[in-house]
Amino acid sequence: MLPGQCLYVPIVDETGGMLNDPVAVKLAEDRWWISIADSDLLFWVKAVAHGWRLDVLVEEPDVSPLAVQGPKADDLMARVFGEAVREVRFFRFGQFAFEGRWLVVARSGYSKQGGYEIYVEGSDLGMPLWHALMEAGRDLDVRAGCPNLIERIESGLLSYGNDMTRENTPHECGLGRFCNTQTAIGCIGRDALLRVAMEGPVRQIRPIAIAGGPVPPCVELWPVTVGGKPVGRVSSAVWSPDFGTNVAIGMVRMTHWDPGTALTVETPDGPREAVVQETFWN
Amino acid sequence: MLPGQCLYVPIVDETGGMLNDPVAVKLAEDRWWISIADSDLLFWVKAVAHGWRLDVLVEEPDVSPLAVQGPKADDLMARVFGEAVREVRFFRFGQFAFEGRWLVVARSGYSKQGGYEIYVEGSDLGMPLWHALMEAGRDLDVRAGCPNLIERIESGLLSYGNDMTRENTPHECGLGRFCNTQTAIGCIGRDALLRVAMEGPVRQIRPIAIAGGPVPPCVELWPVTVGGKPVGRVSSAVWSPDFGTNVAIGMVRMTHWDPGTALTVETPDGPREAVVQETFWN
Repeated sequence: MLPGQCLYVPIVDETGGMLNDPVAVKLAEDRWWISIADSDLLFWVKAVAHGWRLDVLVEEPDVSPLAVQGPKADDLMARVFGEAVREVRFFRFGQFAFEGRWLVVARSGYSKQGGYEIYVEGSDLGMPLWHALMEAGRDLDVRAGCPNLIERIESGLLSYGNDMTRENTPHECGLGRFCNTQTAIGCIGRDALLRVAMEGPVRQIRPIAIAGGPVPPCVELWPVTVGGKPVGRVSSAVWSPDFGTNVAIGMVRMTHWDPGTALTVETPDGPREAVVQETFWN
Repeated sequence: MLPGQCLYVPIVDETGGMLNDPVAVKLAEDRWWISIADSDLLFWVKAVAHGWRLDVLVEEPDVSPLAVQGPKADDLMARVFGEAVREVRFFRFGQFAFEGRWLVVARSGYSKQGGYEIYVEGSDLGMPLWHALMEAGRDLDVRAGCPNLIERIESGLLSYGNDMTRENTPHECGLGRFCNTQTAIGCIGRDALLRVAMEGPVRQIRPIAIAGGPVPPCVELWPVTVGGKPVGRVSSAVWSPDFGTNVAIGMVRMTHWDPGTALTVETPDGPREAVVQETFWN
């Protein structure tokens, strides 16, 4: 990995359980940013450094990622940061000036629409940049937004703390390809993951279509059963207007994870028929 | 500390910076619950145990505290758990039955109205207990609620992540009396806090009254100045209808923390006159 690259890096504890799934941004040979998901990873890292008596400095810089996503993202960003921003490749970043200061701009984001993440360094730049983007994007119909639950599930974008927790290995979450387990000698959790890396997990994330009308909000894990026996759970589910079905993210045991397998999902409204899908919808 | 007691236990890192301010519940000589504030303290504790190769088990049990607060809390709780619940003293707990299961019920809570916290062990009990409380309290006008910002500030109840962070020692937060620094030999952060425990902090939390009409929402730290020089910051502020002033929680340097000291608070609307108070309002 070279400076200028980003990498999706699932991070695990000593048992191989996931603690976070951040994006690492390699700024220089000896300097990284870790752009974290929703858990206080800093607490883990600082305590590891303390317990192992490591001579490192780990701190939270004043950097806040701002995502610009969607089919018009390139045009909008070019207006604010210049045409060269179009040349940034997927999961690479460049440095671009805004109000005389250099910002890291990566082609990445928590959607499959494509676009950029601006690593806003200096919270004083936040509002000026926001206004500049809104102003420049007026005719592009730019809007404030947030990760969209329906699109997130259709696209199979996992949410840490929900679809995956400390209970799960990266391999169970379909993230095994981001773990170089064989070569990660000395890394925390490496030993715990050696077998699962070789043999594969016994349960794994799957796209699941749930039959019937719109399901209620999925605020707790819904059991997945076959013939009354538990074979997994659904952690995210919502009605998809585009696909005319309930789309869901579930963890299913190996015995029942093949595409086309018929399942029962125990929703709060009662059991529903469901089918394991070949791929996510988007 | 004996089984049956609760204790407010500020927890710090190796520099003495606060990581959380939980309530410890001593269930037995060798078993504790740590009821945490808003940070992933488990990540810190598990990594410390890992780095120091400690032979302990640290896990998150299926326990969710439910608070019943206010002047009618005793009456309501007695209807659901029996008259004996009235005998629970402040920061003590007893075991009381609900639907045939024993729950820890403590006299505590994040308000100064008084009341109880029920440690709901088993999330399946959550909704039945909720409905039982609502049903039993119908004529008491029981309502769902949450910590009230105005009352929280009036009462000087600090909020972790807001009024206090890793930047602050417990002594800066006025929590020094909860730290037995002299005797805590071998505890993480003890050495870092020895001097501050002896000499006191150079800045500390203070109640501050801010002049003028209602202040805007305090969503970032507001600088506190005197003669243009920084002497602190305000982390929580809101208009108090009961006291007819803006009530605020601030961190002020020793040179300007005496009651009656005139300060300037730099709000988003411009500078405001302010005065250090002797005590919080409630």
